[in-house]
Amino acid sequence: MSDIVKEPVNKKQKTDEYVLYYWPGTPGRGEYVRLAFEYAGVPYTEMSDPSKLLATITDPAKSGHPPHFAPPALKLPSGRFLSQTPAILNHIAPKLGLAGKKEGDEAEEERSLVNQLVLTALDLCNEVGGKTHDVHHPIAVEDYYEDQKEAALARAKSYRKSRLPKFLKHFQAVLSSNPEGKKSGGTYLIGSSTTIADLVLFHVRAIRTL
Amino acid sequence: MSDIVKEPVNKKQKTDEYVLYYWPGTPGRGEYVRLAFEYAGVPYTEMSDPSKLLATITDPAKSGHPPHFAPPALKLPSGRFLSQTPAILNHIAPKLGLAGKKEGDEAEEERSLVNQLVLTALDLCNEVGGKTHDVHHPIAVEDYYEDQKEAALARAKSYRKSRLPKFLKHFQAVLSSNPEGKKSGGTYLIGSSTTIADLVLFHVRAIRTL
Repeated sequence: MSDIVKEPVNKKQKTDEYVLYYWPGTPGRGEYVRLAFEYAGVPYTEMSDPSKLLATITDPAKSGHPPHFAPPALKLPSGRFLSQTPAILNHIAPKLGLAGKKEGDEAEEERSLVNQLVLTALDLCNEVGGKTHDVHHPIAVEDYYEDQKEAALARAKSYRKSRLPKFLKHFQAVLSSNPEGKKSGGTYLIGSSTTIADLVLFHVRAIRTL
Repeated sequence: MSDIVKEPVNKKQKTDEYVLYYWPGTPGRGEYVRLAFEYAGVPYTEMSDPSKLLATITDPAKSGHPPHFAPPALKLPSGRFLSQTPAILNHIAPKLGLAGKKEGDEAEEERSLVNQLVLTALDLCNEVGGKTHDVHHPIAVEDYYEDQKEAALARAKSYRKSRLPKFLKHFQAVLSSNPEGKKSGGTYLIGSSTTIADLVLFHVRAIRTL
């Protein structure tokens, strides 16, 4: 009897919240998702048991269709799982008030421009050491850094000399050409409020101070 | 006088169509955008003058805010420019009928799952030779292939042995677990109609037959 009474409560708990599936103890790409929820003040929980993580998100019997290639994955309030950091961020941005403040027809274009800026900031992250750890693993992501150290040093040199300045120049141009930014202190990449693009660029810069 | 009469017509022509800004004579990442328009039968034109291409999309005085990091960029019917292949594809997919057929609340989640699959297919493309030409330029994208040939051969070996099979296994699992796919021949990654994810994976496979 007590089980029957409790059931609706459990169901509500299961379906009313976001659950982030990501590796324990590492910021990585999961951190971009955490940052969005933390900034917006929206509750979420984490499933970070390494013995179950990959098995859950890559098995359609557990994650539903389609299965996922890699974490982070986010379980949505509907019960569906969504993966790929830019897809997750684009999906939750309007729900968390982080996709700009335009309305009507312009809202969708502003959301897409925020998505564009997120993707470029993540490209910067990927090139130095994000998703495929390019600078530290230029030959093979599955091999040790020590086995490709020489190539890694050469790639790091190219990154510092050529790629990083190019990205920073781009984001400086985005900031300084934002017509609405001037009114609000010049600190927003787009519009006159914090978007997910600002949060992603903040984190990319915070972890890339080399 | 004739100029005055013509003006509204010109304005209409300028704002009613999509214009793809991409390098001439190369499929590259522009091809994913072309493929979407061609499949949907929606008209678009191209601006591919290499002397003006980068200058237009990276200058906020010409492209509007925000400026863009790299082609492809798409001029939308509103006159705004949008760049980053996944952002462009996610933006146009529902307009071209390529974001799934779900309706209501489920439509946005299906669109995000299509976006997820597009991003994973583009990751496969990036790792072998897409955006940053990883396999052929493992050390520095701005240097010649000949100057990093040894590293490139090692990376290609890793790609063939480990990364390509992992991606293909994933997409096979996506196809075979699609509950709606069984009814329609098992050829759709998601739902029971062609989405932008199918077109992107088709093109990734078409160019990656090595």
